Amino acid sequence: MIQTILDAHADWVDPTLADGLVEIGARMDRMGWVPGSAGNLSARLSDQVIAITSSGVHKGRLSRSDIIPVDLAGQALRNGDRPSAETLLHCQLYARDPSIGAVLHGHSVAATVLSRHEPGDAILLEGYEILKAFPGIRSHEAQVLLPVFDNDQDIARLAAQIAPILDPAASIIPIGYVLRGHGVYAWGPDIERCFWRLEALEFLLRCELERRQIG
Amino acid sequence: MIQTILDAHADWVDPTLADGLVEIGARMDRMGWVPGSAGNLSARLSDQVIAITSSGVHKGRLSRSDIIPVDLAGQALRNGDRPSAETLLHCQLYARDPSIGAVLHGHSVAATVLSRHEPGDAILLEGYEILKAFPGIRSHEAQVLLPVFDNDQDIARLAAQIAPILDPAASIIPIGYVLRGHGVYAWGPDIERCFWRLEALEFLLRCELERRQIG
Amino acid sequence: MIQTILDAHADWVDPTLADGLVEIGARMDRMGWVPGSAGNLSARLSDQVIAITSSGVHKGRLSRSDIIPVDLAGQALRNGDRPSAETLLHCQLYARDPSIGAVLHGHSVAATVLSRHEPGDAILLEGYEILKAFPGIRSHEAQVLLPVFDNDQDIARLAAQIAPILDPAASIIPIGYVLRGHGVYAWGPDIERCFWRLEALEFLLRCELERRQIG
Amino acid sequence: MIQTILDAHADWVDPTLADGLVEIGARMDRMGWVPGSAGNLSARLSDQVIAITSSGVHKGRLSRSDIIPVDLAGQALRNGDRPSAETLLHCQLYARDPSIGAVLHGHSVAATVLSRHEPGDAILLEGYEILKAFPGIRSHEAQVLLPVFDNDQDIARLAAQIAPILDPAASIIPIGYVLRGHGVYAWGPDIERCFWRLEALEFLLRCELERRQIG
Repeated sequence: MIQTILDAHADWVDPTLADGLVEIGARMDRMGWVPGSAGNLSARLSDQVIAITSSGVHKGRLSRSDIIPVDLAGQALRNGDRPSAETLLHCQLYARDPSIGAVLHGHSVAATVLSRHEPGDAILLEGYEILKAFPGIRSHEAQVLLPVFDNDQDIARLAAQIAPILDPAASIIPIGYVLRGHGVYAWGPDIERCFWRLEALEFLLRCELERRQIG
Repeated sequence: MIQTILDAHADWVDPTLADGLVEIGARMDRMGWVPGSAGNLSARLSDQVIAITSSGVHKGRLSRSDIIPVDLAGQALRNGDRPSAETLLHCQLYARDPSIGAVLHGHSVAATVLSRHEPGDAILLEGYEILKAFPGIRSHEAQVLLPVFDNDQDIARLAAQIAPILDPAASIIPIGYVLRGHGVYAWGPDIERCFWRLEALEFLLRCELERRQIG
Repeated sequence: MIQTILDAHADWVDPTLADGLVEIGARMDRMGWVPGSAGNLSARLSDQVIAITSSGVHKGRLSRSDIIPVDLAGQALRNGDRPSAETLLHCQLYARDPSIGAVLHGHSVAATVLSRHEPGDAILLEGYEILKAFPGIRSHEAQVLLPVFDNDQDIARLAAQIAPILDPAASIIPIGYVLRGHGVYAWGPDIERCFWRLEALEFLLRCELERRQIG
Repeated sequence: MIQTILDAHADWVDPTLADGLVEIGARMDRMGWVPGSAGNLSARLSDQVIAITSSGVHKGRLSRSDIIPVDLAGQALRNGDRPSAETLLHCQLYARDPSIGAVLHGHSVAATVLSRHEPGDAILLEGYEILKAFPGIRSHEAQVLLPVFDNDQDIARLAAQIAPILDPAASIIPIGYVLRGHGVYAWGPDIERCFWRLEALEFLLRCELERRQIG
């Protein structure tokens, strides 16, 4: 059924959009956020189709052919394509909010160390001007909770844990979330602005970590 | 009235100067000082006009058209241009001292974390050779106070807080200033040398932060 | 005898493979892992021959001629070539496992500081998603011991210390190892994937170091 | 008198050597070791003449014309050239040892913070493999003292403080030295290998600083 509603061109990825993900991957690599083959990058192609990085490639040295189309259930639309196990977490975001055009997931040292140091289920962020990078936040005085979820290799179970913070009935959508000992998820209306939010999130996490490193 | 005293060419920005800001933005980005769309860069065009980065663009990937002319009251000189809310802080500096040719404002991790850790209204810097990067300082033995202001979303009110340290009657002008949890403001006779002072300020802030991180 | 079983072309290095090592050296340099002339990079040429970086050159600015062929006993196959003293540690790995196609050794600040801080003979790694970068590890919940050996200028004696963890009878091969106050050894099926594992190892070491730097 | 023994071409700098210093300046800048106009780079032109960076320029964006010839007393050989005040510290090294072909001085965060934290007149370095980067050191077990001098704006007086560690009668020449709150001096037979030693020194200083930052 999903098959029938797919765009006739669902099995290929717009080269401009693929190039955008390739370039953002290189930027993430320069920041040290995609060690090994870590991280996933995606962008929306249509209501029902997203483009996402293939499993097992280095996200800092992508080529167009590493960007593959999947449906919102996370299924590859072409035989032989191998989307990442975490594709479902991307799909969950695209399904939640039609205005989301891109999702970036990276593994930074700050996100990894801070989320393991934080015993609770959120990191409290306040007093940071950069919080204004996120929609609806107009002052550094805002108290913002960045959700932290325990990591889980069962992605469907993990998605179920994450679902409540993405509930359409909830008054606000969070600025992103962190998987403990794993990394950060950021989203935005397009690839470029999603990267800006990822930069802002990583900046906040690095600040919080360095703050805790003061003797 | 201001309109009448403006240069006939007030509505456009000298391309060489715009390119200078574009290049400094890229350098600030490589240092990690302009995450997301953070930061503002400006340079003086004439007695009454400055060129400043537009609001809501990434300062590490500027193009000439992102550099817009504003008057010393912070008003855009062309319809549709959208200067940053913080333009007023730039204007305050240009109005204070006709020898100021450029102002750079970035958001670094060191400035953000250190200014939040520092309870007082200044960071004491002494014993640093690099202090000699600033006018009038001839020895590392100088005791230099880098002012820290509490952040405020009301920029006019913030400017009023800052005004006393820029009082023309004051014996010395500070080496820069920091907005708590926000970032640093640096100024200089031209774009290049303003960047040198920003580098020196950020170096000092990073040193002070790492010193406090010793166990 | 070894001489007779060598490939007729054992005395030259495939230029594509040499270029691969040159490029990885530049990447390691950008990460700060090969200060001065530190580090060694190698790749397998055949069952009996490996290509390895020459002694006393900067690994971030290699040229093809800096990559020299040696046999599995670490002996240069051409007169005048000077392999590193640590070549034997590379050979030990190639001899242990025919599926190893590349070995990278770098000196990072994290590996150096952490291995000196760790009093024991291994660093325990658990709770890190990035552990899945290594073969056979399917969950962040795995408890992984990264062996740490006391540094020794007698490389044959050091190799004998390392031998037990590479014992073919052992159930698992470690994810790499660290020489205390010295650096890390990583291996993989080819140059590119070996670099990925090195990135993952260095990421883990940096995380552990920053964790211990929290006040 | 010195004038008469100078090479007939003492008033110009070999372009290849100048380009070498330009390139090393760019590398030092990428490492963050020459903020603002900090640092000095020099290389020997002859027994009596050295080439050194001009005062008040950014060492990361040098051009050939920023490299000026001076005699071993630190005097410019051309009218209008303005060598740095610290030129005398370079000259002291070239005069001490004819095998010294290059001297590099940078301002790193690690050198600055660590030298201020260290109360004594030397930093003890031991247990580091990278110590072998320096002549005469064959084991990480060597105990190496890196001299630290209190900073002084009177360069002649500072040179006199430094003189004893460079005494030709002393059994060993140190691996470099640090000016407290200021930066590091490194030397070597040529520009390239001097940079390697600077990298090794900075690596050691960063390691020592991070070690002290462990909670």
